[in-house]
Amino acid sequence: MNNNVYTRRANYYETDMMGIVHHSNHIRYFEEARLFFMNNIDCNAREMESQGIIIPNVDAYARYHTPIRFDEEIEITVTLKKFTGAVMEFGYEARLKSNGKLAAEGHTKHCFVDKSFNPMSLKRKYPDYYAKLKENVTITD
Amino acid sequence: MNNNVYTRRANYYETDMMGIVHHSNHIRYFEEARLFFMNNIDCNAREMESQGIIIPNVDAYARYHTPIRFDEEIEITVTLKKFTGAVMEFGYEARLKSNGKLAAEGHTKHCFVDKSFNPMSLKRKYPDYYAKLKENVTITD
Amino acid sequence: MNNNVYTRRANYYETDMMGIVHHSNHIRYFEEARLFFMNNIDCNAREMESQGIIIPNVDAYARYHTPIRFDEEIEITVTLKKFTGAVMEFGYEARLKSNGKLAAEGHTKHCFVDKSFNPMSLKRKYPDYYAKLKENVTITD
Amino acid sequence: MNNNVYTRRANYYETDMMGIVHHSNHIRYFEEARLFFMNNIDCNAREMESQGIIIPNVDAYARYHTPIRFDEEIEITVTLKKFTGAVMEFGYEARLKSNGKLAAEGHTKHCFVDKSFNPMSLKRKYPDYYAKLKENVTITD
Repeated sequence: MNNNVYTRRANYYETDMMGIVHHSNHIRYFEEARLFFMNNIDCNAREMESQGIIIPNVDAYARYHTPIRFDEEIEITVTLKKFTGAVMEFGYEARLKSNGKLAAEGHTKHCFVDKSFNPMSLKRKYPDYYAKLKENVTITD
Repeated sequence: MNNNVYTRRANYYETDMMGIVHHSNHIRYFEEARLFFMNNIDCNAREMESQGIIIPNVDAYARYHTPIRFDEEIEITVTLKKFTGAVMEFGYEARLKSNGKLAAEGHTKHCFVDKSFNPMSLKRKYPDYYAKLKENVTITD
Repeated sequence: MNNNVYTRRANYYETDMMGIVHHSNHIRYFEEARLFFMNNIDCNAREMESQGIIIPNVDAYARYHTPIRFDEEIEITVTLKKFTGAVMEFGYEARLKSNGKLAAEGHTKHCFVDKSFNPMSLKRKYPDYYAKLKENVTITD
Repeated sequence: MNNNVYTRRANYYETDMMGIVHHSNHIRYFEEARLFFMNNIDCNAREMESQGIIIPNVDAYARYHTPIRFDEEIEITVTLKKFTGAVMEFGYEARLKSNGKLAAEGHTKHCFVDKSFNPMSLKRKYPDYYAKLKENVTITD
């Protein structure tokens, strides 16, 4: 399986009274997909955080296409679009597995800080993580 | 008090292991602020939905500036930036009440659909709601 | 695999500033495990709800033993402890997969109502679901 | 106003496809009410935690009576039922403000630990907090 395709099912408690997954949860799905992908490229967020690397969101965007309903399987494709050592950007595409329809797409930007929320240079302090992320940036043209 | 300034406190369960409010919750805060404002201009979402007007998100964006910590009071200013009858756009500015610091800003776009998620013309079917929203669009230039 | 053992990983956004999964999320994990099990015994909650069978909680209890941390795999064993046609009760045992430690245990009680929240007799109106649930009650003595 | 009566409105994102507040959220409402009450008796959880006093849940129980719908105002009465210095227990009663109907009731048990989750004696290390909690236990007979 592709290391950047994350699959999960929509939970009952994620729906709202509209009968569909509440739009805030897509942001959470994106996080799950992102951390799954990072783990697959040897950048496990739990280990990184235990070493003092905190990776907060700088921003988050989601655009909603097809509503996701309870119990539907969703396939999220993550792309590391940009990585400078100071910031990184991911793109997301969430599709309903049953019919391939685009459920949502989005992007998030992140920075690297220490436990006191001071900016950190991943390149200088953690060259291994730096290298892993660098080599997994998707080349688009 | 201004009808578009919504105040609330950050809850414990909204924080994550970073020690700050998880970034997905800002999208929920925006929703709270938006529905508060809509209620203040006689567009109560609960009544609208009970009349068959469903208002899903078309998109949502948040940009994070200062982390919000548990128990901090947040003041969110909502602006209805655009309303065409078919779609509407809101802008948000969330500030820490203690020091006025910008915590986050963002925007969301919405459409109007019926219970089967078919597009609906608010202007034709619900002229009163249409008028209320129309007159509360913030004129910016 | 056993049809009543549900496995999932703890998500980042489910942690709180204590650094562990917030205690409200265990109630959600229980729901995931319960609906997984029900699906496995041909009582898919989505189909049941689309046929007009709503299954609200009458109560919910969780007792917390070992904290669950981000990224840990959890194995939840569900047991249908009681089913009368009018109410049903489930028991849950959540263990950390890495070491088998008990993370939490709990139970929930449910009833069956129609879309207007009026009590419904599953036995009379939906004998197939009734039979499925009946035969999957765990005999304990 | 009574220092143990907490009021809040049900948010849209707290509802589920049943059209009512998802049962896991009552556990969160209880937390809000508990921390509101603790703050009112000079036991602010944020300050306590910053001094190294972590107060995890030992258990949590909710029994659901009347469904809570979006936008409904809820009034939660909190009672500190027991406090030994090592553990404390709270009771909760959530009522719909519009008609006084009981929406849910419940209880939670808590202990006191340090940042490494080792048990801590509040009485010996933090006599002031100990005294505040002690004097706010509700005498029932």
